[in-house]
Amino acid sequence: MPMLTMLVLTMRSLFPSVGLRRRTSLLFLLMGAAALPQAANAQTMTAGEAWLKIQHSYAPAPPPDTVDTLKAGDPSTPVTGIATTFLDTMDVLREAASRNENLIISHEPTFYNHRDDTKDFTNDPVYKEKLAFIQQHHMVVYRLHDEIHFSPSGDHILLGLYKALGWQSYPHPAGPFGAYFVTIPPTTLGQLAETLRQQLHIQTMRVEGNPDLPIAHAAVLPGASGLSKQVMALNQPQVDVLLAGEASEWETVEYVRDAVAQGRPKAMILLGHEVSEEPGMEQCAEELRVLFPGVKVDHIVAGQPLWNPEHQPKK
Amino acid sequence: MPMLTMLVLTMRSLFPSVGLRRRTSLLFLLMGAAALPQAANAQTMTAGEAWLKIQHSYAPAPPPDTVDTLKAGDPSTPVTGIATTFLDTMDVLREAASRNENLIISHEPTFYNHRDDTKDFTNDPVYKEKLAFIQQHHMVVYRLHDEIHFSPSGDHILLGLYKALGWQSYPHPAGPFGAYFVTIPPTTLGQLAETLRQQLHIQTMRVEGNPDLPIAHAAVLPGASGLSKQVMALNQPQVDVLLAGEASEWETVEYVRDAVAQGRPKAMILLGHEVSEEPGMEQCAEELRVLFPGVKVDHIVAGQPLWNPEHQPKK
Repeated sequence: MPMLTMLVLTMRSLFPSVGLRRRTSLLFLLMGAAALPQAANAQTMTAGEAWLKIQHSYAPAPPPDTVDTLKAGDPSTPVTGIATTFLDTMDVLREAASRNENLIISHEPTFYNHRDDTKDFTNDPVYKEKLAFIQQHHMVVYRLHDEIHFSPSGDHILLGLYKALGWQSYPHPAGPFGAYFVTIPPTTLGQLAETLRQQLHIQTMRVEGNPDLPIAHAAVLPGASGLSKQVMALNQPQVDVLLAGEASEWETVEYVRDAVAQGRPKAMILLGHEVSEEPGMEQCAEELRVLFPGVKVDHIVAGQPLWNPEHQPKK
Repeated sequence: MPMLTMLVLTMRSLFPSVGLRRRTSLLFLLMGAAALPQAANAQTMTAGEAWLKIQHSYAPAPPPDTVDTLKAGDPSTPVTGIATTFLDTMDVLREAASRNENLIISHEPTFYNHRDDTKDFTNDPVYKEKLAFIQQHHMVVYRLHDEIHFSPSGDHILLGLYKALGWQSYPHPAGPFGAYFVTIPPTTLGQLAETLRQQLHIQTMRVEGNPDLPIAHAAVLPGASGLSKQVMALNQPQVDVLLAGEASEWETVEYVRDAVAQGRPKAMILLGHEVSEEPGMEQCAEELRVLFPGVKVDHIVAGQPLWNPEHQPKK
């Protein structure tokens, strides 16, 4: 039995009444303690070694056909510091370089598509400049997507969002996917949207449904989880609103429109992909600090890329 | 040689100096005239017969593996009237039924995914209620997507958007895809975004780039044309801004963010999928009125599904 599975099972039996989040923290604390002797030699740890340790801390083995792979750089590079981020944009890379952090753990793709397939970008000026920057600064980029979402210890991206919202202690239903559903203090769709907009400083929130709809039960699916999962979540009888990062406008958005037009008490709030997942990578930085004591670990915020013409960016 | 190709070629040789739009109008006028004797018997024309005529008016043959197919209803149903729309939402179907229009020509899918694949929706309450409504009202739904975008006479969805913007007479570069690129009066990104927002009554416009960026050359790709086409359009040297319906936030949106961070004079405006393609289906209604004189043809606006919490829908 792989070490982490064993640890998780042990944690479950040792602390059956402790919530997922606290059990996770305890687990990472234990793992951090175990890692202590190595950490003293942080400068001799290579990016590849650090990556393996990060992977194993989230899952015994990566899922088949995972996108959690090396995206750029040489894994034998000694680690000078670690930066986590929603997505390693040019500006995130520059900030990491200025902080002398050369191991980049990015939740979303570096090169503009899910598989980081670069065959269409060989002559692309934006791609070439980004890759050259990574190489010139001896950076190493790994993607941490599947393993942090589907960890046996829970979806840590979801956990980060709950923490950012202050929703960690709100009740979830039982069941394997219970964590994605949460009961919140009664409100209306309009009030919830405005509260979330202010709380998460959202520049381009988009909402669907009747603003007066009473809300008490939310499904929370950070990122772009796609039509099937989004519809499945919405269709749980108790769910009033789906909070998602983004959704295709000809898919889930039109499904919700029809559901509402049929008089069903459903709604959707699109937070923005970055807004919905950035707190999860901040959570990841907290966890990596425990995993690599003595190594500098920062979370670098990618920020929201889009703006609303009514609130133009400051000059 | 198929009739339409012949007609298009004839139109080109007869009117080489006439712009695409006017040539298209002339072509439809001629085709309408040819259809006149049939039109007197509109009540005996079946939905299937009308659909074939619509298809042939846009392209000699549908592209291989097209999504332009029957989505619901019985093609042998006699046509009582035709409704075009961006997407046949529940409310659009209700409005069409109240107007006694039973042939629905929808640009986007009826059942929430590009191929209108319904295998995952067999027990879905929203799908079942929508399908039952179509059947109970003896409606027949066809999708008109590929053939109206890729017609030998031009992209009529693009043409509709240009008309809505008043950009029809602005110059295009030469070349097979020249129509998607347009030179507009010099402005800035911030000014252009605000003008478009007001002009098209956009509820949730999203913009990317420096608001002060000078703009004179736009690429216009209505709908969700995807990463490759959007990046290819942006990379044309003269293009300052891409106007698109929607784009995945982990794809084109991040490409533009990096391009801007690298100091490239590029920007993107996401109009919303519906906003970008509704005028094209209004254009389609105009064309079908010429094709089917004596038959009632309406354009029914699907409307924007999403709203901004700062401007909540009126109660």
